[in-house]
Amino acid sequence: MTEATVAALADLVGGRVQGDGDRLVRGLCDLRAGAQDRLGFVRHAKYLPLAKTTAAGAVLAAEPVDTPATLLLVDDVHVAYARISSFFHPPPRASEHQIHPSAVVDPRAELIAPVRIGPNAVVGNCRIGRGTVVFPNVTIGDGCVLGEDCTIYANVAIYDGVRLGNRVIVHSGSVLGSDGFGFAQSKDGWLKVPQLGGVVLEDDVELQAGVLVDRGALGDTRIGRGTKLDNACHVAHNVQIGRDVVMAAGCFLAGSAKIGDRCVFGGDVGVVGHIEVGADVRIGGGSMVFKDLVEPGEYMGHPLLPMRQYARLAKTLRRFGESGGAS
Amino acid sequence: MTEATVAALADLVGGRVQGDGDRLVRGLCDLRAGAQDRLGFVRHAKYLPLAKTTAAGAVLAAEPVDTPATLLLVDDVHVAYARISSFFHPPPRASEHQIHPSAVVDPRAELIAPVRIGPNAVVGNCRIGRGTVVFPNVTIGDGCVLGEDCTIYANVAIYDGVRLGNRVIVHSGSVLGSDGFGFAQSKDGWLKVPQLGGVVLEDDVELQAGVLVDRGALGDTRIGRGTKLDNACHVAHNVQIGRDVVMAAGCFLAGSAKIGDRCVFGGDVGVVGHIEVGADVRIGGGSMVFKDLVEPGEYMGHPLLPMRQYARLAKTLRRFGESGGAS
Amino acid sequence: MTEATVAALADLVGGRVQGDGDRLVRGLCDLRAGAQDRLGFVRHAKYLPLAKTTAAGAVLAAEPVDTPATLLLVDDVHVAYARISSFFHPPPRASEHQIHPSAVVDPRAELIAPVRIGPNAVVGNCRIGRGTVVFPNVTIGDGCVLGEDCTIYANVAIYDGVRLGNRVIVHSGSVLGSDGFGFAQSKDGWLKVPQLGGVVLEDDVELQAGVLVDRGALGDTRIGRGTKLDNACHVAHNVQIGRDVVMAAGCFLAGSAKIGDRCVFGGDVGVVGHIEVGADVRIGGGSMVFKDLVEPGEYMGHPLLPMRQYARLAKTLRRFGESGGAS
Repeated sequence: MTEATVAALADLVGGRVQGDGDRLVRGLCDLRAGAQDRLGFVRHAKYLPLAKTTAAGAVLAAEPVDTPATLLLVDDVHVAYARISSFFHPPPRASEHQIHPSAVVDPRAELIAPVRIGPNAVVGNCRIGRGTVVFPNVTIGDGCVLGEDCTIYANVAIYDGVRLGNRVIVHSGSVLGSDGFGFAQSKDGWLKVPQLGGVVLEDDVELQAGVLVDRGALGDTRIGRGTKLDNACHVAHNVQIGRDVVMAAGCFLAGSAKIGDRCVFGGDVGVVGHIEVGADVRIGGGSMVFKDLVEPGEYMGHPLLPMRQYARLAKTLRRFGESGGAS
Repeated sequence: MTEATVAALADLVGGRVQGDGDRLVRGLCDLRAGAQDRLGFVRHAKYLPLAKTTAAGAVLAAEPVDTPATLLLVDDVHVAYARISSFFHPPPRASEHQIHPSAVVDPRAELIAPVRIGPNAVVGNCRIGRGTVVFPNVTIGDGCVLGEDCTIYANVAIYDGVRLGNRVIVHSGSVLGSDGFGFAQSKDGWLKVPQLGGVVLEDDVELQAGVLVDRGALGDTRIGRGTKLDNACHVAHNVQIGRDVVMAAGCFLAGSAKIGDRCVFGGDVGVVGHIEVGADVRIGGGSMVFKDLVEPGEYMGHPLLPMRQYARLAKTLRRFGESGGAS
Repeated sequence: MTEATVAALADLVGGRVQGDGDRLVRGLCDLRAGAQDRLGFVRHAKYLPLAKTTAAGAVLAAEPVDTPATLLLVDDVHVAYARISSFFHPPPRASEHQIHPSAVVDPRAELIAPVRIGPNAVVGNCRIGRGTVVFPNVTIGDGCVLGEDCTIYANVAIYDGVRLGNRVIVHSGSVLGSDGFGFAQSKDGWLKVPQLGGVVLEDDVELQAGVLVDRGALGDTRIGRGTKLDNACHVAHNVQIGRDVVMAAGCFLAGSAKIGDRCVFGGDVGVVGHIEVGADVRIGGGSMVFKDLVEPGEYMGHPLLPMRQYARLAKTLRRFGESGGAS
């Protein structure tokens, strides 16, 4: 079982200890469900009374609190919580080389040991870096490159020629590299335009369940380093997403849309094709982006408005609902 | 082949027979495509003329109709239809113990016979109740508990530690227990917050295709007894859905949202994180819920309004479209 | 490697050659990245300068351009591009009969050689036409019929009794034939209404990744010849989609909706149950269709309006956001 002293955890998160730094911690806990080898945490002032009576052996907080436990003081409790919890619960990594006998792996594939390939997974002629775990019933095509310490959860489908950096996590039901939606209208109906590009996920990208990322038409569809997409996001061909972007569930980015670094989207935000959204733009849930959006700031609605204007519009619309209109 | 007399079906649905109760029925039919061993049904007055000339041997109706067939009279035709059709076409159940030789089942798994595990399914160290059917290419992780008479259709992915009650049905492409979307913003980018809770689906829950249910951050994500979610619904971490709720396709519930018993949502309804929707609330398709909603009733829109106000607003907006505004 | 003379390609697309028709072409290229055996293309006037200096051996254009390359002149560059690119990059087809030993195929299945069944696929008692390719980890139920030259990508799930025409393409994560969302409200909660119909995809249908098509309640859910649905579209039970329809990602069609031939929908368009949309209707992204829509034309919004009225309404709403309402 993973364990560490409070002093070691303080080193990990750049915090300082008040009390017994040698106390051993074996996991996190809710303050109400504490134990001597657990670290509780105070994220809001309303939890201060719980700190006073907790059975947790240590408590994480942003400032000194009244508690019998050893205190671990940090600048940002949420960030420290994330680091400590990830220390106790790291993503799955391969520590020994295990190819399940029911997996079907192309003999030309280059697996840099240790790699773990789960039961009934199918792996084409590709390259997989050390530490990477491929769960059961995953399909990986030919010509793919997966970096080190990636986690590909069960039943993911990865087409030919998809490239993943290091520490990429892809959750179940996601699809990488399926054809972009390209058709030419002719007198014989819609003609398929072959999709010849690839998909690139840079280091530390995480895709939640059911995320669909199409391959590019000629170039690559690309998701930048550290970007996280929630369940059921759709990324069309040639889309370019910057670094450290966060999108909540159900966002859909049409073909060749370009999203700048550090953008934050709420759920179900749509971006029309060939639109460019600049860096540091925040968009509220359920919005549609029909025009380029360069100015950093917060936006919402359909039509999309700066947040303050959206709030004013919403108030006006509510009034129309109550009174029956502007007349 | 399953068969029953009209009298036996009347017992099943609490109805009464007019005519020959001993007539054998082997299935349901459209009144136009009747046969002597089939039961037709009259759900709307417009079908009354068809009852008069049908070749069906029996007819289900809410009141006496002019027909040569045996009549089965019930209070609610739709409910009786559901019960009788389910009698003839029950969900798949395991009647003999069958583990396909290509399935990979952890030797520590506890399968209460009879259970059926399909080809190329992968089952971890978990417990599966009698009668349950696991279709091909399903993945089930460690520490899961599946109750009796469950049906897990092809290519479903169930992560570790997910618990299902009895008679739960999960359709293809659904994912249970993937990580919730939890990240802490730091100077080094977004840090993953490990998701340590589980997922609980109570008895008689049915999830259609492509439903995504995330595991809780610390506690469980929970879906209450008898609730039915249509295709492509998204249920984020820590969401609590009550009993007998119905949501049409594409609804998305953000983290820690709480939905009361017997709510009915149209398609593509979004609920923002930490919002509470009370019991018996009905929300029209395409709406967004940004605030707590305690009062039972019908709502719609974005901003969300009581249905009558929404209708008034929609009328006003249409007028603006026609005339160019309120000026 | 596939190759053809410019003259042969001209025959393929009904174009005419200016320059050396015997020049061999082995693929397409961007004008900037040309090579002597590649065909570049000019789709916009802004690319004319590139044509002048390209290293491509041949150039596709709608009218004579200044270039050292052999010219291939056509009426519609996009259509010719689609045909030529598909000549060099056809969809996967089975040229020899290959059933991977890890696939589980019902011995009663009728596979018309040559057919390719990938590793760990599971195929029930069904009929599959010549040329069809089934990728790894696909599940196909009993009683299905797949035509000739179909492509079923990895991890697709096809339930019992689904019928596909010829040249149908289904991308990963898609589900065909899962139960429609049918329940009857009773004093004992929601009772399942068994879904007894099927799913029919006519010739040349293409479904992108994560498309969900439910089986009909009694009759079939049907998608007409040549129709293309983008990622994550949802097609409920009994829906009838006409021919040569195109829907962008995330469209959701509720039960028994009927969509006419040649309709074009933007992303995330919703259609309410039992609604009929006539032929040649175009609907902008993010719209909801609550009423029958017979008149051909372009529509948008929620409420849905003719495009010109929508534009007027959007302008009015923006004004409200800026000024705070109509007063």
